[in-house]
Amino acid sequence: MAQQNYHIGNFKANVDKIIAAIQTAKNAGGELIVFSELAICGYPPRDFLEFDDFIHSCQQAISAICEVAEGIAVLVGAPSRNEVPEGKDLFNSAYFIQNKRVEQIIHKTLLPNYDVFDEYRYFESAFDWQTISFKGKKLAVTICEDIWDIDDTQPLYRFSPMERLMEQQPDLMINLSASPFDYTHAEDRLAIVKRNVLRYQIPLIYVNTVGSQTEIVFDGGSLVCDAQGNLIKELNYFEEELGVVTWDGAAGFEESIKIASEKLPDEVLAPNRLMPGLNTDRIYQALVMGIRQYFEKLGFKQALVASSGGVDSAVTLALAVAALGPENVQALLLPSQFSSEHSVSDAQQLSQNLNNPYQILAIADIFNQFEQTLSPVFKDLPFNVAEENIQSRIRGVLAMALSNKFGYILLNTSNKSELATGYGTLYGDMAGGIGVLGDLYKTQVYALAQYINRKVEIIPNHILVKPPSAELRPGQKDSDSLPEYEVLDQILYQYIECRQGPSELIAQGFEPELVQRILQMVNRNEYKRNQFCPIIRVSPKAFGIGRRLPIVAKYLG
Amino acid sequence: MAQQNYHIGNFKANVDKIIAAIQTAKNAGGELIVFSELAICGYPPRDFLEFDDFIHSCQQAISAICEVAEGIAVLVGAPSRNEVPEGKDLFNSAYFIQNKRVEQIIHKTLLPNYDVFDEYRYFESAFDWQTISFKGKKLAVTICEDIWDIDDTQPLYRFSPMERLMEQQPDLMINLSASPFDYTHAEDRLAIVKRNVLRYQIPLIYVNTVGSQTEIVFDGGSLVCDAQGNLIKELNYFEEELGVVTWDGAAGFEESIKIASEKLPDEVLAPNRLMPGLNTDRIYQALVMGIRQYFEKLGFKQALVASSGGVDSAVTLALAVAALGPENVQALLLPSQFSSEHSVSDAQQLSQNLNNPYQILAIADIFNQFEQTLSPVFKDLPFNVAEENIQSRIRGVLAMALSNKFGYILLNTSNKSELATGYGTLYGDMAGGIGVLGDLYKTQVYALAQYINRKVEIIPNHILVKPPSAELRPGQKDSDSLPEYEVLDQILYQYIECRQGPSELIAQGFEPELVQRILQMVNRNEYKRNQFCPIIRVSPKAFGIGRRLPIVAKYLG
Repeated sequence: MAQQNYHIGNFKANVDKIIAAIQTAKNAGGELIVFSELAICGYPPRDFLEFDDFIHSCQQAISAICEVAEGIAVLVGAPSRNEVPEGKDLFNSAYFIQNKRVEQIIHKTLLPNYDVFDEYRYFESAFDWQTISFKGKKLAVTICEDIWDIDDTQPLYRFSPMERLMEQQPDLMINLSASPFDYTHAEDRLAIVKRNVLRYQIPLIYVNTVGSQTEIVFDGGSLVCDAQGNLIKELNYFEEELGVVTWDGAAGFEESIKIASEKLPDEVLAPNRLMPGLNTDRIYQALVMGIRQYFEKLGFKQALVASSGGVDSAVTLALAVAALGPENVQALLLPSQFSSEHSVSDAQQLSQNLNNPYQILAIADIFNQFEQTLSPVFKDLPFNVAEENIQSRIRGVLAMALSNKFGYILLNTSNKSELATGYGTLYGDMAGGIGVLGDLYKTQVYALAQYINRKVEIIPNHILVKPPSAELRPGQKDSDSLPEYEVLDQILYQYIECRQGPSELIAQGFEPELVQRILQMVNRNEYKRNQFCPIIRVSPKAFGIGRRLPIVAKYLG
Repeated sequence: MAQQNYHIGNFKANVDKIIAAIQTAKNAGGELIVFSELAICGYPPRDFLEFDDFIHSCQQAISAICEVAEGIAVLVGAPSRNEVPEGKDLFNSAYFIQNKRVEQIIHKTLLPNYDVFDEYRYFESAFDWQTISFKGKKLAVTICEDIWDIDDTQPLYRFSPMERLMEQQPDLMINLSASPFDYTHAEDRLAIVKRNVLRYQIPLIYVNTVGSQTEIVFDGGSLVCDAQGNLIKELNYFEEELGVVTWDGAAGFEESIKIASEKLPDEVLAPNRLMPGLNTDRIYQALVMGIRQYFEKLGFKQALVASSGGVDSAVTLALAVAALGPENVQALLLPSQFSSEHSVSDAQQLSQNLNNPYQILAIADIFNQFEQTLSPVFKDLPFNVAEENIQSRIRGVLAMALSNKFGYILLNTSNKSELATGYGTLYGDMAGGIGVLGDLYKTQVYALAQYINRKVEIIPNHILVKPPSAELRPGQKDSDSLPEYEVLDQILYQYIECRQGPSELIAQGFEPELVQRILQMVNRNEYKRNQFCPIIRVSPKAFGIGRRLPIVAKYLG
């Protein structure tokens, strides 16, 4: 079981890694090595799949793998061409390779096309189903979504490939996956695996990819489950690993049973009434891996964080330091004339705790110069959101100037509550290369801060107890413009994650005016989110590629 | 034939407009009125379709339409619920309504899921096919894509709904469409309609929507074609229209034949070797409608354009004035210490020609203050792209400040060549609410400028003859960083629109080093385009929702 991290389109690196694993497995006496879905090119390759050159590169990679597939069989995911004229040009396939040649190609049947998935954009569904004969056993090979269609009340698809494969009486299921992480994914994965083995009464080997691809995180957790639903083996979460399992059709698995609950819920914080509890440990690991691999795969080393003394930038900074090392994370303090003293002192204390470098650039002089330049136009119009945004945008310009001069990547610190309601400034605090906290509501950011501080006070306690404020005008508080976060976040969660409409929300007990006001804010600010950077996805419904809404629309707005 | 412009999610406005058309048709003695695809909710509704409340609102709208559907039959597009447990929850449907009730619901079979389309994300395909009996005739009703699958060599789908419907020997085809415009769409539409009538030997009534939905433009052009492939009627392009056609199965159509070529290629400018000729008249109309409806549907009136004295901002300004009126378009001139004199004088002359207001704010003082504030950090490091970007971003802050203070929407002026190569500054000249020229390469922008000047010199000639420059350092020219646009644009067109890879491009005669350099620029700047505003789409492959690429990848980069 090769649980590996691939780099999209980097065929050289991916093939080297795959071949190294094959050699390792062969040297250890392995008979079959299984890689994950679309391992050759990395998942998701998106519209690169529309380039003939890209598919050709995939095929060259398969040829290179054939060269080493001797004395061991290989199952590896890659696109394949549909030779039938009708239908889309590609399949999402598993190549079965042995004796230095491709002996069989299995195609994915169920093509997910919801949330972050776009597979029907590229691939045709399988339309016939064959098991693979290997050493006297029949293997039922499926790809990711193919085994997720076990909802007996409202299945998403009209038929199941496993049902078809069972007609050939296979001995073992093998599933190649690239199944994205969210904070309930480990439980979902175990549940679906168990439902499959219990329904079909044969064991399952499930190989998932691991790693982060811009916004999408894969947590690994590849596993083996016997026909009775016992978890035989589970690979690490958030780490590459080669796992070995020994199976004899009659005698079963040699490995001892690993208890699933070892890796499952720890650190679940008390939920709000209408929001789920959070496994903050898992979210922390996902975000740290997300940051780290974003830098590694782009070839960058150093991050810049605009450190305001608030909880969002504090948590972002702590995560960045964990991902990249304190020496690679620059904090930039950008106080204005409206910043409170504690903003600077809290941010300084934070960087002292984290041992990362920080710099202070006051923005007042630049702001005054903007006011002067604009005075022939603004005349004596009162201070309003225009001036608030100028301050936020000056900070954006300064942060990007350092980024351009020194090669830092600016990490964005906006949280999901702000992004949902539009409580942020485009080109100002909404600037950055990747959104670290954009998939966590404000109350969830506080929970993550508590987790970070669980052993020692990394984030100064004052940051966690003071009322949130953008500090763009004297005495400003978030609560001047927004409802209390405890209520706001529940409504947002019900609207965004659960797709509850106004009548359902009112039936849940929220005030009709408040519901209308919040839903209107969410829908009217689609244009801002549309220009936002990618967000590391940790929930089942993040802003970005997985949530697609019209900008020019008038619904609940 | 009701060719109408809908507002996504604005059920009240859409239903009022639909009911008014039904009343008009009824008063004129009409027997059947046909509306376009998803007319009730507007196309594309995207993930609003995942909200039960949204579907419920669609159904209420259908009920309201039933109330007036007496003495006339109505065919109107709306989502419908899939009552079968298996498969997705919705169909993309045509409701046949008469005698105040829904008598039949026809579902779309072929669900486009390429380019800007995501229909398989929401809809299940039809799996049985019935004609509609109406006044002794059988109607074969299909929805948009259902009739576009007439490629005999490489059809995108595995079967055709029209083939199934033909088994019932229908008398007439009716197609409800929401088929997006691009600069070859009118020819494509006529060709596909003719292929259908000639293949199935029955006439076709084709009703398309018109209007603009953020980035997607619909050009109308609804039409009627007899069984011999003669164009009987064609409604206006880029305008709402109610068209009447009288048909008797035996005697055929009463209308005289309209010549298709009346509306087809005029103004095709001389193409480059590897780029198509452009119908600039059509592109001009699409962009003007795109701007106008973006403002109308968002409820804004006034636009702001940063007017640099270059061709991109000049063309954008001219289009904005055509769309919104000169009094509603503010030009903002933002010269720096590196701006040439002619930049200001050309921009002034342009606004004098267009008769729109303009203001001048010099950015030097703010730039100097940024340098001063940054001096403890930048020390004596040489002037480079960091300082260039600061200037561009100061302009962004000033433009957004006016936007925030006075309620203008900032129009973005970036062209497709710049966006492709990353020759633009995030949060600087890449700021704005909607990209007017983002789907036109630089050489195409010049062609459009010539079109705008075809009768009278609106854009000062000096703007069209001087070498393009960002003017962010002394003596800077685009050609310092980029290949000549004539060559660059051909390579970009072949890569982006035609998905040609490096070996195909080299085979076309381009230098290998140049090809590699340009493809690398395109792929490495995905992160910038990811934060760009929506672009009014006029080509078959625009940046944005219709072109989805990974950010963290290493392919041809």
